[in-house]
Parts: sequence; C-alpha cells; structure tokens
Amino acid sequence: MNLRSFTPPERILLGPGPSGVPPSVLAAMSRPLVGHLDPSFIDMMEEVKLMLRKVFLTDNEMTFPVSGTGSAGMEFCFANLIEPGDEVVIGVNGVFGSRMVEVAERCGASVVQVKSEWGSIIDPAQISDALIDRTPKLVAMVHAETSTGVLNPIQEISRLAHKAGSLMLVDTVTSLGGCPVRVDDWGIDAAYSGTQKCLSSPPGLSPVTLSGRAMEAVRSRKSKVQSWYLDVSLLANYWGEGVRAYHHTAPITMNYALHESLRLVLEEGLKERWDRHEANHIKLKEGLSELNLSIASQEGHQLWQLNAVTVPAGTNEAAIRNSLLTDSGIEIGAGLGPFAGKVWRIGLMGHSSSEGNVNKVVDALKSLL
Amino acid sequence: MNLRSFTPPERILLGPGPSGVPPSVLAAMSRPLVGHLDPSFIDMMEEVKLMLRKVFLTDNEMTFPVSGTGSAGMEFCFANLIEPGDEVVIGVNGVFGSRMVEVAERCGASVVQVKSEWGSIIDPAQISDALIDRTPKLVAMVHAETSTGVLNPIQEISRLAHKAGSLMLVDTVTSLGGCPVRVDDWGIDAAYSGTQKCLSSPPGLSPVTLSGRAMEAVRSRKSKVQSWYLDVSLLANYWGEGVRAYHHTAPITMNYALHESLRLVLEEGLKERWDRHEANHIKLKEGLSELNLSIASQEGHQLWQLNAVTVPAGTNEAAIRNSLLTDSGIEIGAGLGPFAGKVWRIGLMGHSSSEGNVNKVVDALKSLL
Repeated sequence: MNLRSFTPPERILLGPGPSGVPPSVLAAMSRPLVGHLDPSFIDMMEEVKLMLRKVFLTDNEMTFPVSGTGSAGMEFCFANLIEPGDEVVIGVNGVFGSRMVEVAERCGASVVQVKSEWGSIIDPAQISDALIDRTPKLVAMVHAETSTGVLNPIQEISRLAHKAGSLMLVDTVTSLGGCPVRVDDWGIDAAYSGTQKCLSSPPGLSPVTLSGRAMEAVRSRKSKVQSWYLDVSLLANYWGEGVRAYHHTAPITMNYALHESLRLVLEEGLKERWDRHEANHIKLKEGLSELNLSIASQEGHQLWQLNAVTVPAGTNEAAIRNSLLTDSGIEIGAGLGPFAGKVWRIGLMGHSSSEGNVNKVVDALKSLL
Repeated sequence: MNLRSFTPPERILLGPGPSGVPPSVLAAMSRPLVGHLDPSFIDMMEEVKLMLRKVFLTDNEMTFPVSGTGSAGMEFCFANLIEPGDEVVIGVNGVFGSRMVEVAERCGASVVQVKSEWGSIIDPAQISDALIDRTPKLVAMVHAETSTGVLNPIQEISRLAHKAGSLMLVDTVTSLGGCPVRVDDWGIDAAYSGTQKCLSSPPGLSPVTLSGRAMEAVRSRKSKVQSWYLDVSLLANYWGEGVRAYHHTAPITMNYALHESLRLVLEEGLKERWDRHEANHIKLKEGLSELNLSIASQEGHQLWQLNAVTVPAGTNEAAIRNSLLTDSGIEIGAGLGPFAGKVWRIGLMGHSSSEGNVNKVVDALKSLL
C-alpha cells in the first residue's frame, strides 16, 4: 500500500467550526517537539494559563486546557462536579443543552430540564420557576448555542443560580473570544470552551476554568471522579503550581497552537475582537437581507459568530451547501435536529470573521439562489 | 500583556515519549484546516483507518483514533467493555498496570490484581493461577511497560484469557510500531495505543481497535457507557462506514499528523521498523556496557524502544539528566515509583531510534560519568 501524503483542499471555513486558522498558528504547529516536562514547555504552560485567565476574564487559579475537544471539557465539568444522585437544572434549547443532559445523566445526576423552542432563548423566568423549592448542586446552560445561533442570558441566570445556592456551569465553546464572556463578573463557577471556534486554533483542546467554590465542591466529594483522565485533582498535579508530576502526556503541538492563538487574541484586544465579530455579523445580515434571507433565531438574541439562516421555501438546502463547497470552496454548516433542512449555519468565528469572507459568502449565495 | 511567540529549543527526544517527529509530519500540521465533515477529510479518515489496521495487523472494522492521548484510549477500552460489578484480572508490574486498576475501578469493575516485581514480567503461570475457578469479563495487561522497560508475554496470556472465556485487553501504547504487535494472530480483543511513541506523531490521539467479540460485549451492555465522549457506539456514527454523523469535532490537525506518520511507518515496512528498533537497542546496550551501565529490566524481556538503565551507586541521577538536557539538548526520562532515582529511561522510539542518537547519548553519558 503506497498512499500519498494528504494535501487538504483550500477552504474558507464559515461553518460551525473549525474556523480558519491564522498563518502564525499553523506555523507554530510545525515547530519541533519538546518533552511534556521540558522546562521550556512548563514555562509555556504558565503563559497559556495566564492568557486563558485574561480571555475568560477570571482570576481562577484552576484555568487550563483539557486534553480533548469541547465535549471532553463538558464531560470534565460534569464528572468533577457531580456525584451520583446530585440534582442539576439544565437549560435545553438546542443540541448542546441536550448533550449536557446526556453527559450529566451518565455521571449519575438527577436532571431537571428547562426547555425552550429551538431558536429561542431560555428565559431567566423559566429558571427562576425551576428553582422554587429546589437547591440543585448545579445550574448548567449553554452560552452560545451553536445549533440555533442563540445567545442565552447567562449573567441573569447565574445570579438566580447563586440565589438558590447552586453552582453555575456554562458552555462557552462558541462564545469565548467572539463576544463578552465575563467569568468572574458573572459569577460563573465552571466553564469550558473549545479552541476551534472564536479562538481560531485547531480542534483538540478544551480550555476550562473552575472557581474556588467549584474546587471546594470537588474537594468535598465522597466518591472518586468516574473519569481518571478528566479528574481535576490529578490534572492539578501537572497543570498546577510547583513541581510538575506526570499525569498523561499533554498534546504538545496543540498547546503550541493554543499559545499562539491566545497571543493573537490578546494582541488584537478582547473588546476589539468582540466588536469585529459584531460588525461582520451586522454586515452579513444586511447582505442576506438583500437576498431576502433572514436569521432564524430570536431577534435581539442572535449570535454574532454563528448565523442560523432560514432556507427559503422550495430551495434544496443541501444542493446549495454542496455547491458553495465545490464551486467556491466555502464551507457552511447544515441544520441539526429540528433545524435539519431548515437552516444554513454560517459561522463568522475568529480568523474567519472578516469583511472579505462576508462578501464572498453573500456573493456566492447570490449567484446560486 | 505582550507575550512573544513560543520558540521551542532544539531537543533530541530520547525519553519515554514524545519521540522526535519527522519533518514531513511536522509539515503536515501546518497545512490549512478543512471541516471535520469535509469530503476530503472523510476520505483521509478512511485512509487512517486502513493504515491503522495494517499497523495493528488486524481486520477489525472498529479501528480508529480516539480524540485524546493514550490514557484516554485506556479509559475508552475499560469504559466501553466494563459494567459495574464486572470482574477484571489485571497484570500489574509498573505504572501503567496500576493505572489500569485505577481506571477499571472507576468504571465499577471488581479488580483482581496479578502482581510482579518492577522490572520483571508477569509470568503466564501467574495469570493461569488467577483464572482457576474464575471467568472474568476481561484480562488486561500492558504489553510494553514504559515505566520499567519490560515486554510482557501477551500472546500466551491472551491464549489463557480466551481459554477462561474472557476478553483480552492490551495496552500497546509503547509497543505499536516498535516491536511486533499482532492483534488478530494473538487474539487481542481490545487494544489502545498512543501516537507519540513508536509512531512518532505528536501526542494527542489514541489509536484503538476492538474485535467482533469486544463489539458484541458492547452491544450486550445493560447500562450506558459512563463516558459520552468515549462511547464507541456514538463514535461509530462518525468514524464508521456510511454517512458520517457529527459526534464531536475531530482534532483535524492531529489526524493530518497521524496520517502522515502511519504512511511513513508503512513506507518503511513494519518488519524493517521492528528490526531497526532492535538493532539500535543492541547498539545502545553495547555502548552502555562499555560505561559499565546495565539495563534494570529482566534479561530476555527487555524492550527495544525503552531502556531502563540502572543508575550507578553514588551518582546523582537528576544532575546527570539535567546536564544531558542543558548541555547536549538530549532528553531522557527519570524513573517513576519504586524506580525513582534508581533508573534513567532512555527511549529509542520511532524517528528517535537511530544509530546517530545512540552514539550521541552514549558519548554524552561518557563525558558526564
């Protein structure tokens, strides 16, 4: 068998992730490897932790990248914070809220679901109702629902969670680096993200952060965390302060990439980056509007980085999506679940969020519709 | 905060992994990203699966890389095959056997440990004794114990496991690509590996393979797999044949690297690669012997790819190790557990297993001792 090296085609990545990766991040990954306990790598780990705290807007000591993708970060949070029988209230208005339910139940949680229609937010009043006469261990919610393009009102829900004596867990996979995520100001106790969305690093790591209150809950556990790989107390021996002990072999190259992408985020400035995502979202909406296309998600709560576009009646959504890929090299995403066949998902995330890309996708859609 | 891009120092990686990564694998990682459902990526996934089967010497359909490091692969195997209360017999003669016990217990297994001294093999007779009047669901064993440099006699133990009606699970993290691993011939039902050892790809993925018997055990489960991220039935919808369904966002770049590194393994030839590892091990032993240094592990069962070298009495092992790194840019590993302070671990894995590297480390040790 003589297979050839893989040469990927040129793509403009405007789907739900991965987003386009800047040249200096790609270049970082072709640098030679060092060991996972090399003094130079340990110094780099410290910089990654420092930069992640800046990006999450937190002082949480326990802030580092889990060695898996965003879904591993989700599992990390639930597995460490939940013990069998613990009650959890989860907002469900898309794929990732449903995934939280599945993951929490596999950790033995007793789950109370608070549901909204796909494309609508979870209203804080719904959470408030669910918390009457209830003190769950956790309230958990997706910030930016990648499946529907909706931004849930985390800040207010976090306030309600704390009032009820619960910890607040937030999925920031698609929000981090693309719109405000203020872990400390909003009182978020646990958050996980992904590298392949608005941070514009390849998929493979999941930045996480746990508050002092969350770590207290971990320390008060009566049972072991069911996942050895994701046990934060063991990971702290490698990612924490002081002498580093071997736990697993960290993905060296992915950390090179994350380091460089975080550097670019901070070099641009968080505020400037959020503004860029907002401006390109507005520009896309204007362009789509000229094609009589509109956003399927609730007005006033639409994501800047992920646009769920209603497929016009009578249009073959898959054919258009395939033509975009084949003829223009532009990847956009299909709808999932109840949105399958009904929306296109146009991502403008991180490096992919540019005026040039907005023009390209609008022009290409114009020629196809 | 204005941090600079990370420029790793030049290292010769002769520790327990990661090993040195060939230039074409490094280059593969700087190629632009495509989506995880891009037709070109799906074709590449098929080639990765095909090449992994060739390297594992198996026809198992369920052969693919788990999106985590080797320890995630270990957890994948136990989490999918074990249900609470299942009995497991585990051979323990080093760190990774102990880790198996920890992981299996967190999956709810009732574990019977079969122990040997560090540096000795698990004797098949010990397993045979443990299987008298016992039919565990699994017999599990590390093939190449990276902590002690010992190669356990998997083929014979696998025969005993099957005779007892058990499945055979093997850790091939350090063996795969560096010495014979014959999944089908030896009747191995589940195996996991790592990319950063003898395959010489960066750490971040764990190639796994499950036999038809193992998949039958998965299908007969009464309870859900406790890890959503590692649930093989869900992963099969993405990595299996037919239409690909989204599960998690695969680490695109790490798969580029694995594709290229597998290509290099098969281009060299498995037999030729094993021979190279053996030859360089012999050459290292000769060189060490001239320095009056010897291998700590049991004669006749020493790994080619990982050499546990006894630290001479009165020598400061850490000082020598640090000098090698600082003065010569050579990384070797420290001892773990009972071997801490007592051995150096010199890895000759994959791309790092070369006559030139043997000469370099022997010369450097000569000047320091």
